[in-house]
Amino acid sequence: MKYTRDELIAAVSKQMPKERWKHTQGVMETAVWLAEKYGADPEKADLAAILHDVSKYWPVKEMEAIIRENDHLNQELLEYDKPLWHSEVGYFVAKRDYGVEDTEVLDAIRYHTSGRVGMTLLDKVVCLADYMEPGRDFPGVNNIRELANHSLEEALLAGFESTIGFLLSKRQIIYPMTILARNDLVRQIGRLNE
Amino acid sequence: MKYTRDELIAAVSKQMPKERWKHTQGVMETAVWLAEKYGADPEKADLAAILHDVSKYWPVKEMEAIIRENDHLNQELLEYDKPLWHSEVGYFVAKRDYGVEDTEVLDAIRYHTSGRVGMTLLDKVVCLADYMEPGRDFPGVNNIRELANHSLEEALLAGFESTIGFLLSKRQIIYPMTILARNDLVRQIGRLNE
Repeated sequence: MKYTRDELIAAVSKQMPKERWKHTQGVMETAVWLAEKYGADPEKADLAAILHDVSKYWPVKEMEAIIRENDHLNQELLEYDKPLWHSEVGYFVAKRDYGVEDTEVLDAIRYHTSGRVGMTLLDKVVCLADYMEPGRDFPGVNNIRELANHSLEEALLAGFESTIGFLLSKRQIIYPMTILARNDLVRQIGRLNE
Repeated sequence: MKYTRDELIAAVSKQMPKERWKHTQGVMETAVWLAEKYGADPEKADLAAILHDVSKYWPVKEMEAIIRENDHLNQELLEYDKPLWHSEVGYFVAKRDYGVEDTEVLDAIRYHTSGRVGMTLLDKVVCLADYMEPGRDFPGVNNIRELANHSLEEALLAGFESTIGFLLSKRQIIYPMTILARNDLVRQIGRLNE
C-alpha cells in the first residue's frame, strides 16, 4: 500500500459527494461488523469498503475508457447498465492508484455490485454491507438486516432478490451474473441445510 | 414427414396423460390463432404445438441418456431443473422419430420452455401459446391473455416475468438463458416503442 488508512480515506472521500461518503462510512462499519461475526478479516473488509465506491462518481466516459483500454477487465459490462461499471473500474483503480495488491480485497471491490459464482467470505461481507448499511432505505432492507443476524448467505440472497425484483418491476436489464450468483447462493443454502 | 397429421397426433397423444394432451390441444389452438394474428406460419405453429410436449412424460433417465449421448444437445441443461429437459429432448425426438426437418419448427419446440436470445416469430408464438392456452390457470394468466391481443412481445415478457417471479419466490434455480431471453424482449420492446 502506498497510503496510510487516513491518507486513503482522504483521497477516496474527496472523489464523491458528502452523502456518498457517508454511505461508504456505513459500509465500512457494517463490513467490519459482518467480518467479525462471520470470520472474515476485518482489516480487509475495512479496506475493501473504503475503496468500493471510489469511482462511483467518475465521468461515465472515463469509466468506459478504462474498461475499453484494459483487456483483462470485463468488456461485457459495456453492454450492461452503467451502475455496474464502477465496481470493475474501482477494482482497477484500487490496484493502479492506491497500490492494493491483495486479491481478496480487490475481488470484493470488483464483485460488490454484481456478485459472482463462488463468492468468497469477503465478497459476501462487502456486498451485504453495501445492501444493509444503516443509511440504506428500501423496501425489505430491515428484513435483510434481520437475516444478517443469523446467516450471511440468507441475508445476501434476500439482497439479490430485492435487486432482481426491482429490475423486473422497472423493466430494466438484469445482469446474468447476478442470477448466477443468486442461484449459487440458493445451492449453498440448500447444502448448509442438508 | 413420415406421418400424416392424424397419425402424428395419435402417436404423440398416447405418450402423455389425457389431461396433458388436452393442454397440448389448447396450445395447438392458441398457437394457430397467434400465428394468424402476428404473421407466423399457422401450419408450422400447429406442428410445433403438437410435438412440443412429446417427451414431457418420458422417464427422467431416458431424457438424461438422450442428452448425454448426443453432443450437439445442450449438456448444460443437465445441471438445471428437469422440467427444462423435455424441450431439448422433444427437439431431438421430433427429428429422429417423426422426421421433422424444418429448423423453425424444431427450434420452436427446443426453446418453448426456456426462450432464447433472438427468438423467431414462431418461437414466440409457441412459447406464448404454452403460457396462455385456455386450460392454464395461474396468477397473471389473464393479464398475459389480455396483452396477447395487442403485442406478442409484451405478452411473452409478462409470461417470462411470471416464471422468474415464481422461481424467485419458491427459491428455485433460474435458468440464465431465460433471463437473457427476457432481457432481449425488454430491448426489443424498447426499440418498438422508440
